[in-house]
Amino acid sequence: MWAELLPVGRFDASGGYRRFAWSAADAECRAWFAEQAAARGLHYEVDRNGNQWAWYGDPDGEDAVVTGSHLDSVPDGGAYDGPLGVVSAFTALDVLRARGLRPDRPLAITNFGDEEGARFGVACVGSRLSAGVLTPDQAAALRDGSGLRMLDAMEAAGQDPSLIGKDEERLARVRAYVELHVEQGRFLADGPHAVGVASAIWPHGRWRFDFHGEANHAGTTRLQDRRDPMLAYAATVLAARKKARTAGALATFGKVSVEPNGTNAIPSLVRGWLDSRAADEATLQALVAAIAEAAFERAEEDGVRAEVVRESWTPVVEFDRPLRDRLAAVLGPDTPVLPTGAGHDAGILSEVIPTAMLFVRNPTGVSHSPAETATEPDCLAGAAALADVLQNLLEA
Amino acid sequence: MWAELLPVGRFDASGGYRRFAWSAADAECRAWFAEQAAARGLHYEVDRNGNQWAWYGDPDGEDAVVTGSHLDSVPDGGAYDGPLGVVSAFTALDVLRARGLRPDRPLAITNFGDEEGARFGVACVGSRLSAGVLTPDQAAALRDGSGLRMLDAMEAAGQDPSLIGKDEERLARVRAYVELHVEQGRFLADGPHAVGVASAIWPHGRWRFDFHGEANHAGTTRLQDRRDPMLAYAATVLAARKKARTAGALATFGKVSVEPNGTNAIPSLVRGWLDSRAADEATLQALVAAIAEAAFERAEEDGVRAEVVRESWTPVVEFDRPLRDRLAAVLGPDTPVLPTGAGHDAGILSEVIPTAMLFVRNPTGVSHSPAETATEPDCLAGAAALADVLQNLLEA
Repeated sequence: MWAELLPVGRFDASGGYRRFAWSAADAECRAWFAEQAAARGLHYEVDRNGNQWAWYGDPDGEDAVVTGSHLDSVPDGGAYDGPLGVVSAFTALDVLRARGLRPDRPLAITNFGDEEGARFGVACVGSRLSAGVLTPDQAAALRDGSGLRMLDAMEAAGQDPSLIGKDEERLARVRAYVELHVEQGRFLADGPHAVGVASAIWPHGRWRFDFHGEANHAGTTRLQDRRDPMLAYAATVLAARKKARTAGALATFGKVSVEPNGTNAIPSLVRGWLDSRAADEATLQALVAAIAEAAFERAEEDGVRAEVVRESWTPVVEFDRPLRDRLAAVLGPDTPVLPTGAGHDAGILSEVIPTAMLFVRNPTGVSHSPAETATEPDCLAGAAALADVLQNLLEA
Repeated sequence: MWAELLPVGRFDASGGYRRFAWSAADAECRAWFAEQAAARGLHYEVDRNGNQWAWYGDPDGEDAVVTGSHLDSVPDGGAYDGPLGVVSAFTALDVLRARGLRPDRPLAITNFGDEEGARFGVACVGSRLSAGVLTPDQAAALRDGSGLRMLDAMEAAGQDPSLIGKDEERLARVRAYVELHVEQGRFLADGPHAVGVASAIWPHGRWRFDFHGEANHAGTTRLQDRRDPMLAYAATVLAARKKARTAGALATFGKVSVEPNGTNAIPSLVRGWLDSRAADEATLQALVAAIAEAAFERAEEDGVRAEVVRESWTPVVEFDRPLRDRLAAVLGPDTPVLPTGAGHDAGILSEVIPTAMLFVRNPTGVSHSPAETATEPDCLAGAAALADVLQNLLEA
């Protein structure tokens, strides 16, 4: 099962994955999901927001237990972020069936669409739409780097974009959503446990910093006549790191776009995206405000116009306490409980249904890179833990 | 003539031009050149390096006078940089014929290929190949942003890449090359003269600064665990400006490429291109060495590996003194004589044949941008000046 998925969307030059939402690679991953469902005789459906569901038991039944993750990736991402949760879900179902479990409640396996937001700039689009925290109007405004609307990309992939929107009826029938994920840090790496339970997700957001200058010839324009936006961008990158360190938080400029991006042309526009996260919302807001202030200050010095646009915002998530405690009880009393800085569909869905997460140990701690990894025994331990948790939720 | 060329390769969003070497827009420009030659009954040919020639008189004759410029552009460039020289060349020929001039020497109008180097990273490829300062092996290594080899792009455009190389035989038959160009600065802007004569071109070069870090998740990787190459890039951008100001020189980072360039991924690679120029070579070399030192220092602090690769180098050009004086004498005793920071085919060719340049006043001084301009009377004055100069060179 894992082996079939491995080559899809793999990019030879980096060894990483480029499985962007509604792309050809994404379609292959989705076809794989449908095949896994068919091979197990599960009832397969795609919801109005493009999320895939595979039902064991009555797809219209109440009190459903749902598990899954996502199959899309960041640019040159690793093999585990997302797919491990989906593969483990199918594996856990196989384990439960082998145990002879015949639950009264339905169990569903899901693949939430466009979790990474790598193509259209907003993460967790599938779960945000279903939970109603991203409106159809907001979704209609999303475009990829080539200017293509997300809704047109959905339609080209065979998904009717006129149906998107809050999916209360479906989510109301879910008792709990449990997402298994490779850990994206080193909390478990040096300890004895292969699997931990999530406590919370740090609040986080993305901000676009636009610096508008004036295009001109790099070889003939005197320094004093320039309005070069690259300088304010550079100063903002350095300020962000410095202020994040002081705040005990995270701030990253990982994506840049430059116009016209010519070697001998002073740019007319430098656009940088800030990803920032902190343990609490007040710290995060103060940090981003301080970074923006540094951007405006340098821009003014250079005759450049700066603009800061918040592109996404995810409040702090405290996972459902009873559900979290229940998972920890199933896995054993000394199960590690850890927070994460990464956003997940489980975080989005926690606004409307009880959700929980399991993390599988990652020896490098590296994520969003081909160096992201988990050992095979740890992956199997993760799937077994997920099976135990699901059995408990299905039975009790 | 000018009106026909205006829409080619124009990019609506910016109002600027994207006429990159061996692209569809470039092919349209080249077709326009061939049509202009045909309409005037000129002998048309393309040399082994893809440069276009239109001959008035014997194409195999000795002691030819050659004029022209280029038709390609930087990304979102202006309408004048390059095309003004080619259009003025055809206009000047029309003027000379209207005057009834029947020279014994041949006159050729040229369009040198890939002057801007916007696509393959090296400027003046057509003239460099012909002059032998770019070897076929070096040319074979050039690739565009998508990884396509320049030679394959040439071949796709119908140019046999196996023929490229030094073109001694052809250039040996040239008595002088005169290139008319819009001024890329404000030397003439505030004075009474529409046309000036070039004295020299500042030495300049392009250096690629590669910063190799480690891709990782922006939301889960502690600051102290990061090897984020964006920081060293940013520090280098700021150091370049500061050191250029101190040196009285120019340094610009106008082009950046980031991998994987995802909002929530710490980059594995940030690549920035430095364009730097100074009045003399020693100043320029010292400046670039100081910028590289700043890059290495910051990279080391951050656990990032920096690499600096010189991608092009153009020594100082002093235009042929007798030819320059002759142009100034034709145009009048108070003709302005000015240096420029911009590279040109005339600068490359000055290594093997006598070359000169005429500059046409640019009221904004802006270049490599849609704001680049010249008034119609100044353009006509430029073409008339070129006609006078060519007549003098053809007769005497």
